[in-house]
Amino acid sequence: SRLRDHGIEIGVLKPGPLNAITDVPGVQVGHSTLKKGDSVRTGVTAILPHSSNIFQQKVPAAIYLGNGFGKLAGYSQVKELGNLETPIVLTNTLGVATAVNALVGYTLFLPGNETVRSVNAVVGETNDGYLNDIRGRHVTEKDVNNAIENAEGGQVEEGNVGAGTGTICFGFKGGIGTSSRVLPKKSGGYTVGVLAQTNFGGMLKVAGVDVGKQMGHYSDNFKYATDGSCMMIVLTDAPLDSRNLERLAKRAMLGLARTGGIASNGSGDYVIAVSTAEECRIPYKNDSALQTVPTLRNSAMTPLFLATIEATEEAILNSLFAAETMTGRNGHKIEALPKKKVLEMLKAAGKIR
Amino acid sequence: SRLRDHGIEIGVLKPGPLNAITDVPGVQVGHSTLKKGDSVRTGVTAILPHSSNIFQQKVPAAIYLGNGFGKLAGYSQVKELGNLETPIVLTNTLGVATAVNALVGYTLFLPGNETVRSVNAVVGETNDGYLNDIRGRHVTEKDVNNAIENAEGGQVEEGNVGAGTGTICFGFKGGIGTSSRVLPKKSGGYTVGVLAQTNFGGMLKVAGVDVGKQMGHYSDNFKYATDGSCMMIVLTDAPLDSRNLERLAKRAMLGLARTGGIASNGSGDYVIAVSTAEECRIPYKNDSALQTVPTLRNSAMTPLFLATIEATEEAILNSLFAAETMTGRNGHKIEALPKKKVLEMLKAAGKIR
Amino acid sequence: SRLRDHGIEIGVLKPGPLNAITDVPGVQVGHSTLKKGDSVRTGVTAILPHSSNIFQQKVPAAIYLGNGFGKLAGYSQVKELGNLETPIVLTNTLGVATAVNALVGYTLFLPGNETVRSVNAVVGETNDGYLNDIRGRHVTEKDVNNAIENAEGGQVEEGNVGAGTGTICFGFKGGIGTSSRVLPKKSGGYTVGVLAQTNFGGMLKVAGVDVGKQMGHYSDNFKYATDGSCMMIVLTDAPLDSRNLERLAKRAMLGLARTGGIASNGSGDYVIAVSTAEECRIPYKNDSALQTVPTLRNSAMTPLFLATIEATEEAILNSLFAAETMTGRNGHKIEALPKKKVLEMLKAAGKIR
Amino acid sequence: SRLRDHGIEIGVLKPGPLNAITDVPGVQVGHSTLKKGDSVRTGVTAILPHSSNIFQQKVPAAIYLGNGFGKLAGYSQVKELGNLETPIVLTNTLGVATAVNALVGYTLFLPGNETVRSVNAVVGETNDGYLNDIRGRHVTEKDVNNAIENAEGGQVEEGNVGAGTGTICFGFKGGIGTSSRVLPKKSGGYTVGVLAQTNFGGMLKVAGVDVGKQMGHYSDNFKYATDGSCMMIVLTDAPLDSRNLERLAKRAMLGLARTGGIASNGSGDYVIAVSTAEECRIPYKNDSALQTVPTLRNSAMTPLFLATIEATEEAILNSLFAAETMTGRNGHKIEALPKKKVLEMLKAAGKIR
Repeated sequence: SRLRDHGIEIGVLKPGPLNAITDVPGVQVGHSTLKKGDSVRTGVTAILPHSSNIFQQKVPAAIYLGNGFGKLAGYSQVKELGNLETPIVLTNTLGVATAVNALVGYTLFLPGNETVRSVNAVVGETNDGYLNDIRGRHVTEKDVNNAIENAEGGQVEEGNVGAGTGTICFGFKGGIGTSSRVLPKKSGGYTVGVLAQTNFGGMLKVAGVDVGKQMGHYSDNFKYATDGSCMMIVLTDAPLDSRNLERLAKRAMLGLARTGGIASNGSGDYVIAVSTAEECRIPYKNDSALQTVPTLRNSAMTPLFLATIEATEEAILNSLFAAETMTGRNGHKIEALPKKKVLEMLKAAGKIR
Repeated sequence: SRLRDHGIEIGVLKPGPLNAITDVPGVQVGHSTLKKGDSVRTGVTAILPHSSNIFQQKVPAAIYLGNGFGKLAGYSQVKELGNLETPIVLTNTLGVATAVNALVGYTLFLPGNETVRSVNAVVGETNDGYLNDIRGRHVTEKDVNNAIENAEGGQVEEGNVGAGTGTICFGFKGGIGTSSRVLPKKSGGYTVGVLAQTNFGGMLKVAGVDVGKQMGHYSDNFKYATDGSCMMIVLTDAPLDSRNLERLAKRAMLGLARTGGIASNGSGDYVIAVSTAEECRIPYKNDSALQTVPTLRNSAMTPLFLATIEATEEAILNSLFAAETMTGRNGHKIEALPKKKVLEMLKAAGKIR
Repeated sequence: SRLRDHGIEIGVLKPGPLNAITDVPGVQVGHSTLKKGDSVRTGVTAILPHSSNIFQQKVPAAIYLGNGFGKLAGYSQVKELGNLETPIVLTNTLGVATAVNALVGYTLFLPGNETVRSVNAVVGETNDGYLNDIRGRHVTEKDVNNAIENAEGGQVEEGNVGAGTGTICFGFKGGIGTSSRVLPKKSGGYTVGVLAQTNFGGMLKVAGVDVGKQMGHYSDNFKYATDGSCMMIVLTDAPLDSRNLERLAKRAMLGLARTGGIASNGSGDYVIAVSTAEECRIPYKNDSALQTVPTLRNSAMTPLFLATIEATEEAILNSLFAAETMTGRNGHKIEALPKKKVLEMLKAAGKIR
Repeated sequence: SRLRDHGIEIGVLKPGPLNAITDVPGVQVGHSTLKKGDSVRTGVTAILPHSSNIFQQKVPAAIYLGNGFGKLAGYSQVKELGNLETPIVLTNTLGVATAVNALVGYTLFLPGNETVRSVNAVVGETNDGYLNDIRGRHVTEKDVNNAIENAEGGQVEEGNVGAGTGTICFGFKGGIGTSSRVLPKKSGGYTVGVLAQTNFGGMLKVAGVDVGKQMGHYSDNFKYATDGSCMMIVLTDAPLDSRNLERLAKRAMLGLARTGGIASNGSGDYVIAVSTAEECRIPYKNDSALQTVPTLRNSAMTPLFLATIEATEEAILNSLFAAETMTGRNGHKIEALPKKKVLEMLKAAGKIR
């Protein structure tokens, strides 16, 4: 079940029909979930901003380092050139390089890329080493390719799937979550979709209610999931250049804050923001030195900022609502969010009836 | 009245005795409030990290650009050298240069500074041009000097004072607010103090309760106070270098997010973080090329991050609780936060009894 | 006399007709030179990217912090919004705030700006305190206004003028210098113009010849002009967005390096890059949330990078060739570059005949 | 042969005994060179800041993005935490992920690291795809491990070795080059060592002499080696924190500029700077939240900046002097720098006798 199934509404803007990152036209998401034996609890999630050859039709992009204690691949080229040229892949901390190798192979062998000799793979990660035998490095290139091949539009599976299989959030079972917002027509009617891989700590708030504090559910050194991280992917069909995409990306951290996240020292919190607007694509091959594209003015950004904040907050909470109790490495067990109890607390606070 | 006078507690850490930035030992705050005639509604607030000659005894510092649509002075030198060499001054947008001139004069003529020929004044601002005749540029160097001279420890006046005299926050009267947190002994026992000059928009949340949404009190283009800003000053006696101070500064934005702030396009949101630890002072004159100072490790930062988030949230809310309805330029009137109504909403949500 | 008057050519690209920043169409430069009595040796230089109301017709811009030990005003807003809304003004370190106040006043009272309440003045500086009584703060708002009013196209006065009146470069008299490059047609035919205010140290190289080393003309602690700085203004009519302008700005530091500059600790080295392309102007008032502008692709940047490097190198050297021996504060005397000797060294090196 | 074997001296500071990065005490360098058949021309170079377990005894570090069009791994964590926890590895563009996997494996299995679950591998690259069958991805984890195992102090092999096997610089055969500088006692007596992997373009200058221009050896679109890069590793025994290491790293770009490098659009130019000072090590395990370390003040940085600039310039030139003509993929042939001709040009310019 998802947050809204319980009547909980986050923010003031409306979600898209799926309330998922796939509400952004053309976006596809795929998972590879690795649950094997007692101790493999990990996986891969791939997000495709469009279904064509992304290397040939690059998309404007930016990455914001919320807290850079992480191993994300691809940062500097996105920063310098302002674009993304591969699918975005999420996995576990020690699987990043394997995922990069898979993305490089995937890109080199796409039709049309026969002479390509340089690929900037973007891969994010969180550390699932409490439930997962992360040192065993079980993610393979095939798993990554599967996630890409599995990618499709429509509803997105949440919780203990893909790169969220073994994650922990606020001391409860985390995972993959998603949400979206659609701006009113007069603000452009654009869609913002967010997908989060949640593996971080703090004092959980659900729709503003201090669930973590009331339950006393936080470590007294405030350090849940010290090697944790939160990866937030923000896609929009609004036509944005990389500068305004970086500003958009920064706002996702404000959404994380609303859930009670504190970006602890050990939490590698990254936001990748991409414009999927067709008119903004950056063709690899082109005849002209000039490109004429429409982009939104600075003054049109505020509604998109709000959409990003709301969708991020809800995506994180959806990951907690979807994730189920899991036992993994060394018999470690992480309980799912006690939804019944949480819903009672929300009822008491008047958030739901 | 302040937030805690009503039984409202923010977060899980304890405030210091004054619940103010002045809980950090040695810190002094001073205001110059300019209310004249129908249309002058502005002022100056000065924050002194210590009471000695700051140019001669510089302090480790960092500035984080939450949203850089503002006129803050002094950024690049703090970024490059990692230190602060003047008091921090807050005022209105068009008063920054006058405040810089005042700080330069103040510094040049301090005993011991007779040969100083370079001063990096740090001045922040928000735009009070709705209530204040900002184009009249009424702030004088004398007003700035007065704020510095007025600076003292102890309780800090909040609301419509100093640089907060004419500000607007979430569509209500904003102003100056402050709060503090003291870490548990085992986390080092350090104090973090925050002072905020609040002039920004979004959907107000008080202690997590969606006050703005419930009251329908937000513009439907989400653009309250388009030329607004929020200045957040974070002081701590924890011994920190500029890198970790920048990380600390970033967390203040998470505190702002908890109040419903969205860092709108037009909001210049800046955080200035300073370590007041005596052992970290950077003497202007020194005999050795080496300086040996204790600093906290990365792994000790998390409790300080939490303290910053909580104190920022509460400082912003305190500004709203302290500010009173004001009429200014062209008869413009901004109502104070309807506290009675808000308290009822908090009661209904079970936040207070 | 200028570098090329002696047959010295820098680089492989051709300068524009004036070999000056004013080769960029529409650009205007104005100076106010303050030489009074024994100890006032300072001034103001204003650079106007175009002659209309810049606040109403903003220009894409970026500022690169080569070494941020300086007091430049206006950084954060340019970084955030990617544009410039005032003339660029250069002056001395302690005159920055006065120049900001002048630019604010200038902007507020331009026809069409009657309701403007926020102005981001961009002001750079170097420290002329060895020759100039900088503590006397002799620059007035009127001096700044004069520089703006004096601004015109055509040849640019170099050497001991305007903001370069009292500067020191490589231990010789520095000042204002300028140069330009025009790209070949097939690379777009764009013009890049640079103006430098030179007040820094290192081991002077002229056209690659180790003049400073051969003359033994460097302090053995490598610290000439410890409170020095180099301001570099890069204007181009190439249509560039702020991201590529920041990349362009970075290259000016490579030009500085070719002159033997080392960006010493005390040298505040800043580069301000602006596109003057008419089709890229950002109107303050606009009806649409979208702006459709042509910009150069990343892959078209390299020739512009080279042009920036070459023009910066030559602008710095031109400042040294134009500056004359000056006596100032406390009888301090700084010799002009001994051009005769330098030319002999260049002859010996086969650089000129 | 090396630059100084021909009597060419760069700059004013003295090199260390080896004139190599290994003059910095404790530093080790190892190569794996892959030359197989007609088309494998690549390799791996490893630089170890010290010979203990680097994960357990991290070193202060910074990475500067000179031009971020590259695939360097490890940036964000170094930026956030200010330290390095693995050897630095250089290889080709498409080999980065394999090198990361090797470094992760190497680190996980070092004695003492049995419970480590997170490793931030730092790997740089340049694109050797003109001479090397880069799409064949011939670098293996074993090659990387070999480079690490081969690492030793003493003289460093230069030219067509390790990660420099297949690189191209200024249109000539590039490769690995190294150089060092030792500061005078009164400036602290510290050593700065630089190692460069050279694969970039521009107009070659040797000791300031315009070799490239005189030989007409540059493409008329100024785009040699469009997918090139220059990796610069700067190690020093000076006790520096990450902020000053980042400043140091920036200066390496000034050294690159002196060789005629222009940081073209396609050139991924990165600088990794590390302090090897024993007293600055950051132990992974520690009992105290505080660390007391000596670091150099800002004002002591200038001589280190100069040392970095000079050593970088000379390291790049040494790579060109050491590299030999190579034939590789598809019969592509890149000539070595015609040293005889170059030396004649330097003689004519009076640089050597």
